Amino acid sequence: MAEPWRVVIIGGGFAGLEAAKALGRAPVEVTLIDRQNHHCFQPLLYQVATAALNPADVAWPIRGILSRQKNTRVLMAQVNAIDADQRLVHTTGGDFAYDQLVVATGATHAYFGHEEWAPHAPGLKRIEDATEIRRRILIAFERAELASEPAEREALTTFVVVGGGPTGVEMAGAIADVAREALPPDFRTIDPRQARVLLVEAGPRLLAAFPEPLSAYARRTLERRGVEVITGTPVTAIGRGHAIVGERRIDAGAIVWAAGVSASAAADWLGAERDRAGRVKVAPDLTLPGRPEIFVIGDTASAAMPDGRPVPGLAPAAKQMGRYVGELIAARARGRPLPGPFQYRHQGDLATIGRRAAVVKLDRLTLTGFTAWLFWSVAHVYFLIGLRSRIAVAFSWVWEYATFGRRARLITEPANAGPAEAPPGGPSLLPSAAQPAAGAGVAPSKGRVWG
Amino acid sequence: MAEPWRVVIIGGGFAGLEAAKALGRAPVEVTLIDRQNHHCFQPLLYQVATAALNPADVAWPIRGILSRQKNTRVLMAQVNAIDADQRLVHTTGGDFAYDQLVVATGATHAYFGHEEWAPHAPGLKRIEDATEIRRRILIAFERAELASEPAEREALTTFVVVGGGPTGVEMAGAIADVAREALPPDFRTIDPRQARVLLVEAGPRLLAAFPEPLSAYARRTLERRGVEVITGTPVTAIGRGHAIVGERRIDAGAIVWAAGVSASAAADWLGAERDRAGRVKVAPDLTLPGRPEIFVIGDTASAAMPDGRPVPGLAPAAKQMGRYVGELIAARARGRPLPGPFQYRHQGDLATIGRRAAVVKLDRLTLTGFTAWLFWSVAHVYFLIGLRSRIAVAFSWVWEYATFGRRARLITEPANAGPAEAPPGGPSLLPSAAQPAAGAGVAPSKGRVWG
Repeated sequence: MAEPWRVVIIGGGFAGLEAAKALGRAPVEVTLIDRQNHHCFQPLLYQVATAALNPADVAWPIRGILSRQKNTRVLMAQVNAIDADQRLVHTTGGDFAYDQLVVATGATHAYFGHEEWAPHAPGLKRIEDATEIRRRILIAFERAELASEPAEREALTTFVVVGGGPTGVEMAGAIADVAREALPPDFRTIDPRQARVLLVEAGPRLLAAFPEPLSAYARRTLERRGVEVITGTPVTAIGRGHAIVGERRIDAGAIVWAAGVSASAAADWLGAERDRAGRVKVAPDLTLPGRPEIFVIGDTASAAMPDGRPVPGLAPAAKQMGRYVGELIAARARGRPLPGPFQYRHQGDLATIGRRAAVVKLDRLTLTGFTAWLFWSVAHVYFLIGLRSRIAVAFSWVWEYATFGRRARLITEPANAGPAEAPPGGPSLLPSAAQPAAGAGVAPSKGRVWG
Repeated sequence: MAEPWRVVIIGGGFAGLEAAKALGRAPVEVTLIDRQNHHCFQPLLYQVATAALNPADVAWPIRGILSRQKNTRVLMAQVNAIDADQRLVHTTGGDFAYDQLVVATGATHAYFGHEEWAPHAPGLKRIEDATEIRRRILIAFERAELASEPAEREALTTFVVVGGGPTGVEMAGAIADVAREALPPDFRTIDPRQARVLLVEAGPRLLAAFPEPLSAYARRTLERRGVEVITGTPVTAIGRGHAIVGERRIDAGAIVWAAGVSASAAADWLGAERDRAGRVKVAPDLTLPGRPEIFVIGDTASAAMPDGRPVPGLAPAAKQMGRYVGELIAARARGRPLPGPFQYRHQGDLATIGRRAAVVKLDRLTLTGFTAWLFWSVAHVYFLIGLRSRIAVAFSWVWEYATFGRRARLITEPANAGPAEAPPGGPSLLPSAAQPAAGAGVAPSKGRVWG
């Protein structure tokens, strides 16, 4: 070859980043495109949402991660379309030609056809989602402290988490911890310990991917901390400040969506066959059938192992797919023998339930309680990127463990201009998302929003 | 007295917080109202804007700061009006009666009658301002990396800081440091070292409050780091992606306003006499003339010392006023002798110029260079609230000093829904503030904004 191959990777999540790293020494030119400038460590986003960690503790500029990789450039742009015949990616930052294309654009929240629920029950995929959920939870307590009616106060200090997978269990446990431990000394009218946290799961049990005893342990532990666990009951409607759980209406100060995801728009771009969750069906080598130069990986892909079982939508699976595809492209570029079909190696399942409690299921090892929580903590610190983040997160955890504090309890302006949430049962007491920030005429505090 | 006095403090900045603390053991009921839930350490906001520190490093929930003070409650609400005859504060969270009122609502950016400049040149007063400026600076480099025309690339990597006071000097120095030290390894097309940073001051010299030799030192140091310092030249217009400096049009990737402030709306609420900057003229004991139960303090007040000199708009002055008023109210409540008129004690002036350089002017001590920078660093760590923040900030600074890195280089969605900034000379390459976040149809990366 005269010119090195141009490899374009779309998406800087676990899958895309791992593919780029695996191509670091290959004789190719790598272009990684993401619409955000940072890689986000999603497994710890719930800790940003509950004020335990800072955004910068769990997100890193993609450029920084790949800066030493001389054959790689990183671009921040939105992809609009893929022209597979011309081998072109159309983006807001221009068109990019490729010889090999890796699509790793992840998944998004899915509301089972009820997209109108989205503004009332944000999910947890991006840094902005986490800071918005943090804002809603903290604002609910602020409003409750101001509320004059007991019913209003009760509604505002009720939190509904929809979905009993790891994210839902972690969110419910963390909200209960914050309400019971971090907030009580700060309030005078309300008692944050009285806050209700509901965890609603449509299926028969929490943590369906774990063995049954661990599900039961998680439920018991959450209930002992005051979380009301409701299983076998779907959420049938979500509106402004309330959810219908089964037949029951629950007025809530904040609702968090942890129930479903669907793949990104990659199937549309590629005109590809998709499964029910919108994921692109891929061949055993993770290529798009009929397009050997296009790979689809991570949560965007519907892949099966040689024995027919599906590859799960987990971070380790995404990383393994990324590494596999990076090595496959490197082998192609070097004219070396190609690896066999992709084989996912399951390393285990981990979920934390809150302070001092977690569940861990490895191949031959099952842990619960404090030991599991320590294992979980060490594992997650290990998987962070860079010594700097590891020190910062470990220090935060040790500090919070000792003091019960939550340092990042900041309410900042919302990250989107979507519909505002009003408190249930009354007019807005506080500036909300849709209201423009007040000008000097009504602003009691320092500064004001320019714009 | 049968009932303890009700003291209402509006504003949780330096002045209001200090007043509340000074009332901690007084026989009164304190209500502190702020429209934000956190106290912000404004002197370090420029480090959030330049990705050196996290928001939570320089902002703390007001509730947390005052949680051990049992006679004090904190409420998050916006003040709409003050009824001085009825002694009522009207807020979005209800009406609050007071026996003694402390107004400490701070100052805001002032654009000298050109409020239309505000969306194009944000100032630096709140956490949201800092993350927005950080976003604009980082996005400018991202756009430059994508730009095809050299002129566009040059415009995008030009930064204009308006105002040569401490904030302007600190911002210009920090932007130059980021461009020269943190970013170069991350880019392939542009060389961030070529970025232009302009610091524009209408007056004859930088740091007008400092002795002339220190101004000259600051200028030399900035120029040695590549900052173009322009004095004696006003900015006559600011528009989308450009500023008119004297007669010259400068196309810029980001413009930062550090030139002027005016007081909050307190004078309107109180129907009070004000000075040119909108500040309320107060008596020697910081009360509103004719209203001995109303105090106005901090940047909202126009106060004079017994010798006639004005009290400057600095953090130490605000803190001293707060402490004075808190002690005065406590003395009144206890029926003890009242203190004499407020007397400001000037402790000195400090400004940092960037890595390893600062200027310090104390009563008998003048420092420049590395020694001044060390002094500045230690002083600022000392003034932070809580051991947790001190450790976090000190660790960040040592780490960044050693590695030249900037850990908080996150571009997150803008904090307001105001007018968007487009890059100069072309259509938007990246999602900007006014565009709704893209849905699944066009989004290449993980997640999407719900709402």
